[in-house]
Amino acid sequence: MNNLLVVGSVAFDAIETPYGKTDKILGGAGTYITLSASYYGVPINLISVVGYDFPDKYFTLLRGHNINIEGVEMKKDQKTFFWSGKYHNNMNQRDTLVTELNVLADFDPVVPTKYQNADVLMLGNLTPIIQRQVIERLEKRPKLIAMDTMNFWMNIMHEELLKTIKLVDVLIINDEETRQLSGEYSLIVGAKKILTMGPKYLIIKKGEHGALLFDKDNAFAAPALPLESVFDPTGAGDTFAGGFCGYLANTNDFSFANMKNAIIAGTAMASFAVEKFGTEGIQWVKYKDIRKRFSTLEKITAFNFPSNIEV
Amino acid sequence: MNNLLVVGSVAFDAIETPYGKTDKILGGAGTYITLSASYYGVPINLISVVGYDFPDKYFTLLRGHNINIEGVEMKKDQKTFFWSGKYHNNMNQRDTLVTELNVLADFDPVVPTKYQNADVLMLGNLTPIIQRQVIERLEKRPKLIAMDTMNFWMNIMHEELLKTIKLVDVLIINDEETRQLSGEYSLIVGAKKILTMGPKYLIIKKGEHGALLFDKDNAFAAPALPLESVFDPTGAGDTFAGGFCGYLANTNDFSFANMKNAIIAGTAMASFAVEKFGTEGIQWVKYKDIRKRFSTLEKITAFNFPSNIEV
Repeated sequence: MNNLLVVGSVAFDAIETPYGKTDKILGGAGTYITLSASYYGVPINLISVVGYDFPDKYFTLLRGHNINIEGVEMKKDQKTFFWSGKYHNNMNQRDTLVTELNVLADFDPVVPTKYQNADVLMLGNLTPIIQRQVIERLEKRPKLIAMDTMNFWMNIMHEELLKTIKLVDVLIINDEETRQLSGEYSLIVGAKKILTMGPKYLIIKKGEHGALLFDKDNAFAAPALPLESVFDPTGAGDTFAGGFCGYLANTNDFSFANMKNAIIAGTAMASFAVEKFGTEGIQWVKYKDIRKRFSTLEKITAFNFPSNIEV
Repeated sequence: MNNLLVVGSVAFDAIETPYGKTDKILGGAGTYITLSASYYGVPINLISVVGYDFPDKYFTLLRGHNINIEGVEMKKDQKTFFWSGKYHNNMNQRDTLVTELNVLADFDPVVPTKYQNADVLMLGNLTPIIQRQVIERLEKRPKLIAMDTMNFWMNIMHEELLKTIKLVDVLIINDEETRQLSGEYSLIVGAKKILTMGPKYLIIKKGEHGALLFDKDNAFAAPALPLESVFDPTGAGDTFAGGFCGYLANTNDFSFANMKNAIIAGTAMASFAVEKFGTEGIQWVKYKDIRKRFSTLEKITAFNFPSNIEV
């Protein structure tokens, strides 16, 4: 069984949506990714950093999902990373109200000895320099490296970002980021361009419109799972990435055909995340409910086009 | 073989996109719908109205696609409907620059005797009163009635619109119109509500993000065909509707399962429409190219999720 190494923030989020408002709750890319991946039954090692104000109950939650937190450093003189945001009515746009980097400002990721020999590495959204440091501090290249990033790094650290992107197998970004990184409006043309920058696979996340997967020769389009209510989109992309990587680690098949299944796995997990505030939706998911969402995704995408249509 | 009766505008459009600008060219919902449907080899009857300025060459074009234009009235004292619009850089938003109703202002649709016994009726976007008149002027209810409409009628003729919607089997609108008509932000909740207003099927068009199909018990999500270049989105929705209805008329199967195939047929046709200006993209499509796009849509949506994944 492959293990999964995840690097990403473990943080406090305060979220406001049209449906309500939270105080500081558990958040962070590393949190969403590992919680989501944990349902795929692979050993998970997390590298992150928190401050003195980070409560033990959250560590208990992560440990309860068999997430190894030996690599989560606790800084005794600094506070935990804090993000606060407010979603607009349509849930597709949000304003960042507060970003306090705190412990993340000088985060120097340490790879514990037990974390060496990582099979699948997922780099959550962080500065591209930190992401690259983790790759460089691994004695052996993982079988698969996936990374998330965001427009912010494209704006202020473009060269560093390109250096890191060059080292990974799968880049996971959204449609606007694809346009910005490639300089192309067409996602197809943009994808082709990005696939010359290093990654063999590009995943374009489109929120409620699903996700696209590209390699040099193939494309795949998955819808999002149609939901009656979306309470909080925070962490949906990270949850998607966690399900994707957890599935790939579990199945040990990194072909395009199996990446399609991994996208279905990630899509199913993301659908749970957005139904509740923060990480609530993915804290205690029943396996049978996950399997139900796989079936729904199969059902709503399947069609049987006749080969003999007279056209 | 079922016949298809189409009611819709035959018009002049002047279009500006980031890629170029046209003079007055052939446009109109009735034009796009019938041209698109013509590739599905069913007898097509068109009801519309044009003015004295409408050139013969466009009639020749329609006739060349075996579209019966006996029901296209020509008013000798009025001009043809004219619409002019400008697309923004992202092609998803457009401004209407000019709308001259001309012949459409007092359009009183006449159903020629030869058009009675319509099997499939497609009501292109027009006032809901005219759409209803056509239904009422048919001696026998068609096997299937589909209709398009738009937010404009929701704003100024809401009651009339509801009366017409009540009479149809398939309503074809976009995501924003779904939200407006249902008063619900969630497309799923909105779809459920609209399905209590009369239609048995709702199709939600999402442009570059594909289309959704709903009935009371089922959902289907189709992607758009990924394209390298979109030159002009004008008529894409009508072309989709034409392919959809043409396919259903051809196959004579109005089940949910076959509506999914009809959506694939409509999606394939729409992909040709947007690649060129106006109707150019669907004037002379090779059958083998249409079949190729069916295959592409099958290929980019298919996945084979294992039943034994340990979740």
